[in-house]
Amino acid sequence: MMMKIEDKDHAVGLPRQWEMEWFLTPAECNPQGRMPLTLLINRLIEIATLHANAIGIGYADIVERHHTWVLSRVAVEMRRYPGVNDTYRISTWICSVNRLFSERDFCIMTADGEVLGWARTVWGMLDTDTRRAADISYMAWIEALAQPGRCPIEKASRPQSPGEYTTEHYRFTYCDLDFNRHVNSSRYIELLLNQWPLEFHDANRLTRFEIAYLHEAYSGEEVEVRLSTAGSETRAELTAGSTALCRARLCFSPREPEVQAGCSH
Amino acid sequence: MMMKIEDKDHAVGLPRQWEMEWFLTPAECNPQGRMPLTLLINRLIEIATLHANAIGIGYADIVERHHTWVLSRVAVEMRRYPGVNDTYRISTWICSVNRLFSERDFCIMTADGEVLGWARTVWGMLDTDTRRAADISYMAWIEALAQPGRCPIEKASRPQSPGEYTTEHYRFTYCDLDFNRHVNSSRYIELLLNQWPLEFHDANRLTRFEIAYLHEAYSGEEVEVRLSTAGSETRAELTAGSTALCRARLCFSPREPEVQAGCSH
Repeated sequence: MMMKIEDKDHAVGLPRQWEMEWFLTPAECNPQGRMPLTLLINRLIEIATLHANAIGIGYADIVERHHTWVLSRVAVEMRRYPGVNDTYRISTWICSVNRLFSERDFCIMTADGEVLGWARTVWGMLDTDTRRAADISYMAWIEALAQPGRCPIEKASRPQSPGEYTTEHYRFTYCDLDFNRHVNSSRYIELLLNQWPLEFHDANRLTRFEIAYLHEAYSGEEVEVRLSTAGSETRAELTAGSTALCRARLCFSPREPEVQAGCSH
Repeated sequence: MMMKIEDKDHAVGLPRQWEMEWFLTPAECNPQGRMPLTLLINRLIEIATLHANAIGIGYADIVERHHTWVLSRVAVEMRRYPGVNDTYRISTWICSVNRLFSERDFCIMTADGEVLGWARTVWGMLDTDTRRAADISYMAWIEALAQPGRCPIEKASRPQSPGEYTTEHYRFTYCDLDFNRHVNSSRYIELLLNQWPLEFHDANRLTRFEIAYLHEAYSGEEVEVRLSTAGSETRAELTAGSTALCRARLCFSPREPEVQAGCSH
């Protein structure tokens, strides 16, 4: 039985915001003693999943429709990343919903509530039978929980292909795969970050990162990493043959001071 | 002030065993829906660290001597790996201590206490000033907590170099590094497991794994993966130039039924 769009009673009493706290262990840190971007994005997915479960749009609620949530786009801007042995908090809320996508925003904070950065995500729904995008009109009632306009950073754009680019090749293999038997989306990000040496990461940090997930990748697949840099901004693309797997936009700034976020134009 | 070897009073009232419970999330699973070996070994290190802290031989207790624990050897035998959404438990205790090494054993269980497997580890102490092995006689009192003979699997041997071998090359890069600015020891294991395709891992599982960590590796370093297989047993080595980084021994068995552990001879 499909719920009607008007059926806003479903939202009554449900939490509009979800918040969690974590401790950043040494084992989780990158060589700069900070939270790696991959861990941050995993935490966003984790808290998004728990909020979705709490309001009744999680895996258990949609599995009988043979639907599953798919992360489509992410934008992150960080003034500072949590450091080793820091306690940090993330809160999340729905920003908007339409027939095909739901937008969800995040605030990343210190234990005291100081804002470290923000993230915006776009989620679609996959029909696991047809492997095509599913209509999510049946959950239009979550609009009653939405809090548009709270997140001050720009939405994730549709990243463009790099123009003139340099390339490197990589072949995905066993430990790149996850439970879905596809390449883990964190590996896409690692492959991008690996295009710069340690010394660059020591001198610079990522202030804004955007990624659009376009296609799944498989074990044994050889991919091309395409990069083009102009100023502080790099456009990147992973391709397998003629298929774009993801496109990304990375903005780096000199590491000190860790306050300026976004791309400098 | 050094404690005397006879000073066993330090052990009075301290926990001889430490036990923790975790939940295996889908995001943590390998393509077979099981706990990956790398996560298992990270969990062993985590619980070993917490037990060491609890009995007063942890990081906070040895840092003023400029000492740090170093994992030297690991042996794991698993009858079955925890599966997706399983709760699992690990308990750990000291097996022995001598002037240079401490042995620590582990039992991996289901939530109900059914034994899934065992692990044995050997730890040394590094002097962070001299970068050489440190004498740990000052903590000989922990022998009062030791429970030798509880773990039924063979100790980690000193793995041999492979004889005739096949090789593959890999260059360590930024995301292979951890907080110590050395290659994460989990990456050594991933590099070994990546030598077999998904189809092999679908058909076979690792019943016994041994690794000896011999040398740290750095960003940009090119390594050679050397393998030689005889029957169900593979000997492996990672080398950088003429330096052996680690040696390992891997025993695979057909995946069904998941009961037989160890190497079949």
